[in-house]
Amino acid sequence: MGKDAPYVLVVGAGAVGTYFAARLWQAGARLAMLCRSDYEAVCKHGSFDIKSPHGDFKFIPEAIIKNPSECPVPPDFIIVSTKALPEIDVASLIRPAVHPKTSIVLLQNGIGFDEPLAAAFPGNELISGMTYIGVTRTAPGRIEHIDSGRVALGKFPRGISQNAQLLAGLFAKSSVPCEIHENILAKRWEKLVWNVPFNPISVLSRADTSAIMAHPASRELSRSLMEEVCSIAAVAGFPLQPGIVQKNLDYTAAMKPYKTSMLVDFENKRPMEIEAILGNPLRVAESHGLSVPNMRAIYALIQLLETGCRH
Amino acid sequence: MGKDAPYVLVVGAGAVGTYFAARLWQAGARLAMLCRSDYEAVCKHGSFDIKSPHGDFKFIPEAIIKNPSECPVPPDFIIVSTKALPEIDVASLIRPAVHPKTSIVLLQNGIGFDEPLAAAFPGNELISGMTYIGVTRTAPGRIEHIDSGRVALGKFPRGISQNAQLLAGLFAKSSVPCEIHENILAKRWEKLVWNVPFNPISVLSRADTSAIMAHPASRELSRSLMEEVCSIAAVAGFPLQPGIVQKNLDYTAAMKPYKTSMLVDFENKRPMEIEAILGNPLRVAESHGLSVPNMRAIYALIQLLETGCRH
Repeated sequence: MGKDAPYVLVVGAGAVGTYFAARLWQAGARLAMLCRSDYEAVCKHGSFDIKSPHGDFKFIPEAIIKNPSECPVPPDFIIVSTKALPEIDVASLIRPAVHPKTSIVLLQNGIGFDEPLAAAFPGNELISGMTYIGVTRTAPGRIEHIDSGRVALGKFPRGISQNAQLLAGLFAKSSVPCEIHENILAKRWEKLVWNVPFNPISVLSRADTSAIMAHPASRELSRSLMEEVCSIAAVAGFPLQPGIVQKNLDYTAAMKPYKTSMLVDFENKRPMEIEAILGNPLRVAESHGLSVPNMRAIYALIQLLETGCRH
Repeated sequence: MGKDAPYVLVVGAGAVGTYFAARLWQAGARLAMLCRSDYEAVCKHGSFDIKSPHGDFKFIPEAIIKNPSECPVPPDFIIVSTKALPEIDVASLIRPAVHPKTSIVLLQNGIGFDEPLAAAFPGNELISGMTYIGVTRTAPGRIEHIDSGRVALGKFPRGISQNAQLLAGLFAKSSVPCEIHENILAKRWEKLVWNVPFNPISVLSRADTSAIMAHPASRELSRSLMEEVCSIAAVAGFPLQPGIVQKNLDYTAAMKPYKTSMLVDFENKRPMEIEAILGNPLRVAESHGLSVPNMRAIYALIQLLETGCRH
């Protein structure tokens, strides 16, 4: 594609951001990577090493920068793949790199982070998305892709855009399945059905998914939490398909034992995506006067646990 | 009192059992102590060392035994102060020492352990009770009394017995406040109002009471759990006094930071009194078709946590 290739700035060069950046680069896009903690190491090395069952490779971005204002080209896309944490002010962070033509792409879990970004950049297109992948950062600049690696995208608040299709085309070119959804927020709620039970239960009980499913009381708690998510999604205007709870339970029971990302974060003393996954949906429930006692209990416990661990 | 003094066998020579045994001994009762893990060490030493703000002393029981059948005298009282765990079959354990005149005294937390014992010994008086004390076993045969040390007793299922009064008199003689309650089971439910929130929340969040109270969401969760206990107590026929929830919250907010016994057990990898404190009241709720979602959620989490820790 050369000089006409879309220019992509990735903000949040963790495992997920780097992996998908590397795939876009393989498909011909021009890449700038914003690195924070890994900046020195990656600059020195000049590239990222990607290990993958689909083949290992070196990903060499056009630019490795420490500050969005250093982005050498007005980017066509800014992909935000930081963790969804209230303490990360994404709008302020990316503002120096946002140009009138820039599409902002949010690849994050949970809900409640699209709206503030859309409000901060009313003149820019916002593409909202999620990833489904098992990938780990094994060292600065070293990423190990373990399993799957799917993307779901859609225009915020809804619709399908040309730019989303362009991005999906690039992903497809390097064998990353990328679905485009007309109603991406409904997909966000759909993903919450899994994340709301398994992420916090795993942290509070130090259990992997198979232990949670093997234990009758925690399996039932997972079901109750999923039903609460469905009830919030419904009042929020995103009714999920009937049977989604059982489908998620069956799918999880059949999975290999899996340690959730929130448990991995907790064990590594990294902040957990508590607000994106629990706090924000809980506030949606509250704003509709909906009672979700299990989510409320879990939220209190995990907040308290994090409070203790951060002090 | 000499040879006419009441003969007391204490089953469960942990910190609580030993402390109150020592006080009865000071008041003139004859004591036999059933020791399990500490048997060798205590036999060798011949006594228990009690450290207490009220004065340190050596407690020298008449008998230190390893098996209830070795009790040298048919006991007037058997005080059961083991932990309230489903895996401890108290009836089978004490049966060899139970004589027709023996009063069985249960000094345990939680609910659901009196009934099976009463059923196992229909011809014996059962005195049900609870202790309120801060006391620690610092080494085999060494007990450190830290704070308070109150007893509440009553005849099971209700009433006041001469034997309970005799025991209360002995406690009073060695400065242990001992209340006798006509409706001791109501007192059990009353104590659960505190134990149901603070014990499991502290374990799941590794927090002491002041951290739980300082955090708005966990303070509200504590309140909800207390309200659920009150609602179960009411349908079970033990309506608690209005205002008990706020009273418990205020009292706990004013307390010095306290690490609950369940958290201490968890940290020391000892089994926790999950069934006595949560499982049994939850089953009472179920039998009345009462919904207690917070207790159910907490029960699932702590069961799952314990499952992982025991494997």
